[in-house]
Amino acid sequence: MFSKVLIANRGEIAVRIIHALHELDITAVAVYSTADKDSQHVKEADEAVCIGQPQPAQSYLNMQNIISAALLTGAQAIHPGYGFLSESSEFAQMCAECHLVFIGPQAKTISLMGNKANARETMRQHGVPVIPGSTGPVKDAAQALTVANKVGFPVMLKAVAGGGGKGIRKVKRPEDLPQAFSQAQEEAKLSFGDDSMYLEKIISPAKHIEVQIIADQAGHVVALPERDCSMQRNQQKVLEETPCSQINDQERQYLQKITSKAIKAIHYENVGTIEFLMDPAHHFYFMEMNTRIQVEHSITEEVAQIDLVKEQLHIAAGDDLSITQDDVHLHGAAIEARINAEDPLHHFRPQAGKIKQMSLPSGLGIRIESGVNSGDQVSPFYDSMIIKIIAHADNRSLAIRRLLDALSEFSITGLKTNRDFLVALLTDSAFQSGNYLTTYIDQQFLPYYIKQEKEKIGAKEAVTDGN
Amino acid sequence: MFSKVLIANRGEIAVRIIHALHELDITAVAVYSTADKDSQHVKEADEAVCIGQPQPAQSYLNMQNIISAALLTGAQAIHPGYGFLSESSEFAQMCAECHLVFIGPQAKTISLMGNKANARETMRQHGVPVIPGSTGPVKDAAQALTVANKVGFPVMLKAVAGGGGKGIRKVKRPEDLPQAFSQAQEEAKLSFGDDSMYLEKIISPAKHIEVQIIADQAGHVVALPERDCSMQRNQQKVLEETPCSQINDQERQYLQKITSKAIKAIHYENVGTIEFLMDPAHHFYFMEMNTRIQVEHSITEEVAQIDLVKEQLHIAAGDDLSITQDDVHLHGAAIEARINAEDPLHHFRPQAGKIKQMSLPSGLGIRIESGVNSGDQVSPFYDSMIIKIIAHADNRSLAIRRLLDALSEFSITGLKTNRDFLVALLTDSAFQSGNYLTTYIDQQFLPYYIKQEKEKIGAKEAVTDGN
Repeated sequence: MFSKVLIANRGEIAVRIIHALHELDITAVAVYSTADKDSQHVKEADEAVCIGQPQPAQSYLNMQNIISAALLTGAQAIHPGYGFLSESSEFAQMCAECHLVFIGPQAKTISLMGNKANARETMRQHGVPVIPGSTGPVKDAAQALTVANKVGFPVMLKAVAGGGGKGIRKVKRPEDLPQAFSQAQEEAKLSFGDDSMYLEKIISPAKHIEVQIIADQAGHVVALPERDCSMQRNQQKVLEETPCSQINDQERQYLQKITSKAIKAIHYENVGTIEFLMDPAHHFYFMEMNTRIQVEHSITEEVAQIDLVKEQLHIAAGDDLSITQDDVHLHGAAIEARINAEDPLHHFRPQAGKIKQMSLPSGLGIRIESGVNSGDQVSPFYDSMIIKIIAHADNRSLAIRRLLDALSEFSITGLKTNRDFLVALLTDSAFQSGNYLTTYIDQQFLPYYIKQEKEKIGAKEAVTDGN
Repeated sequence: MFSKVLIANRGEIAVRIIHALHELDITAVAVYSTADKDSQHVKEADEAVCIGQPQPAQSYLNMQNIISAALLTGAQAIHPGYGFLSESSEFAQMCAECHLVFIGPQAKTISLMGNKANARETMRQHGVPVIPGSTGPVKDAAQALTVANKVGFPVMLKAVAGGGGKGIRKVKRPEDLPQAFSQAQEEAKLSFGDDSMYLEKIISPAKHIEVQIIADQAGHVVALPERDCSMQRNQQKVLEETPCSQINDQERQYLQKITSKAIKAIHYENVGTIEFLMDPAHHFYFMEMNTRIQVEHSITEEVAQIDLVKEQLHIAAGDDLSITQDDVHLHGAAIEARINAEDPLHHFRPQAGKIKQMSLPSGLGIRIESGVNSGDQVSPFYDSMIIKIIAHADNRSLAIRRLLDALSEFSITGLKTNRDFLVALLTDSAFQSGNYLTTYIDQQFLPYYIKQEKEKIGAKEAVTDGN
């Protein structure tokens, strides 16, 4: 095992990784931007190196400075956390060249899965169902139309080299396809210097279901119980739960079986997540793979009774997995609420400033993962997610109740958070039923919520005015 | 099940009970003294009733006021927590007379176990080994000497009606017995109006091992894995752990078997703990029974994966136990650190005042039970234990590591706590080995710790003085 590891991240995930390192008697080296010099991950690490200015490009995305910090401090490995450089094959490659272990899959695997057309084709070849669409690129609008007619409208035209929403077009009717195709192709050429296009049927409405896998260097693979991450706002996950209440054991086993098989076939190493869409008829379609630890890994840790971050370290050090597929059992249910420093009533605008007082919930079945403390500054430069509150219980309804109680105990002064929004969502009948889809918040819940909250404020102001 | 329950307690245990009530959809009624009007348990309850002045006798021990609060608010049951009225058979009886369910055993059972001579005799009759000594009272000093010679010196002379340290004498040599006997007898007569005496051999050095049991009204009994509570200062538990690392499975099963049998025989209801002394040869001796929930119940909840407070509520409502003895499995190890507002370097003097800032630890396997928050006042009227930090892990060494990491993250400003003392104790080789006895802190650890800490302070002052 390593004796010193550098964490190329910040916030709650950096603190989470430091905990795991300490429990394995590994010296933890933090890196930080000048905005983060007093932050929790710096305080809890054994050593800390400043890597630049607050802007991510100058610090947490600055590969050169991070590699230098690792070499300077004598770290043997780098844990990238999530976000930032965690899915950069270039960074993984640079680590390898500097004889530093990148705690994640091989650079070539990151690269393979990072290209969405390649990932789709790879999964299809290994028996994972993909969204109906073209096999590889289509050569022109005419071929696209043939495929689209076959799979059925609406479809999504996508640039093979795509990313960041560039070179994609949603097409509802056959007659709109030719123009959309040429526009998307032109945009792709401008953005990526590559105008290859492919297309997929649009699966909507759907649930977002994902399977956490762990795989060691010896080729052992274990797939864990699925997470339901369908509660999303603007494509960002808000609440995550495991298991998915709408999936039965047979479906669970099917998902674990197909993901394990594909992961084994591509010689994947370390942790990863395969994301699926599930349509109302319970057909599963591969969406994409995340080749890193995820924010919501904690709920899986609770129900599967495993320490995923420690598994990552063991795998990277060449150890075998601590468990086999037969050891995977589902212990109750877990739900995670992401506490963001944001203002739900003003377009979820991120909030920066000082946390004056923070009160954390406590009690049986409540786990907190926090990157901040009373007195800390929340910086405008980074993600607004500051704390995760995880409730674990014997069953789903108790986990909901427990999480609600925890949220009622949680408070922050000095900054606005999405706490009340989370409470409203947890008490909403759609969440309670478990039968919610990825479009629910944006299309149904949010308009209603905002209206209701503004009416409450209006009513209060009316009272204040003496009416 | 009840729809409304009153909690006749304060602090972390009151908050703990409120959590359980809420998870069962039961309205929680808090009671509070004037000193506690802004405290956490009042904030988290659904209703709250002031029951008197800060002095316990005027509020939390004021049976009349508590019963009135229950009747006034329409509560159907009273949970007494630990301490205060939790082992008062008079209070349990008064509840019964007012048609309120006392959440605990029957008044007569509390009474039986509250009398130490009776409890000892009852346990002996039902096959639980007791400390060698007299069978019932001895009639005079001569008979006491005969028994003492038989069991071996040193012995403890005890008043049958004893309590609060009155009417007891430690006797090291036969020649000291006659005088000690007459002194103790006289004291007993003065204190309790009853001069009956009994005697027991002194088992020392020893470990304090206790077995948590749960029993329902239908007579089902389950005994849970033992707790090692040998880390005590001045007879107060400081750190508790489960399982005891010095006990093997056979001994564990033996303890569970004898306690279950006795508990069944006395028709015990609700939760309770049988405390044993274990001598270096691993002989177990019944010490006493606590007929209530204990501070350290949380560590058992973690390793046995059970909610003991909810079991209490279910049992009191007439439900059967949720588990059988066959369902009891040991999941890893758990350790509890009691955070007290006290100053270890000044005779552990309790600290009162305002908590300016409090930072709680977070992460996998860390559970917090807290009765306070930043900004709260710690009152001089009540127990100095304000927070429990519980670490649960796959094994003991990891649980220790996790607890140490959690303690390093924990901080309070505005008040002194025993945090550093707990850290020193957890890192001490005696604790690490698991092979520590009840005398360890007072006789070995504390003198060394105080000396070392005072030297550190001296060294700091010397530096400050410019030497």
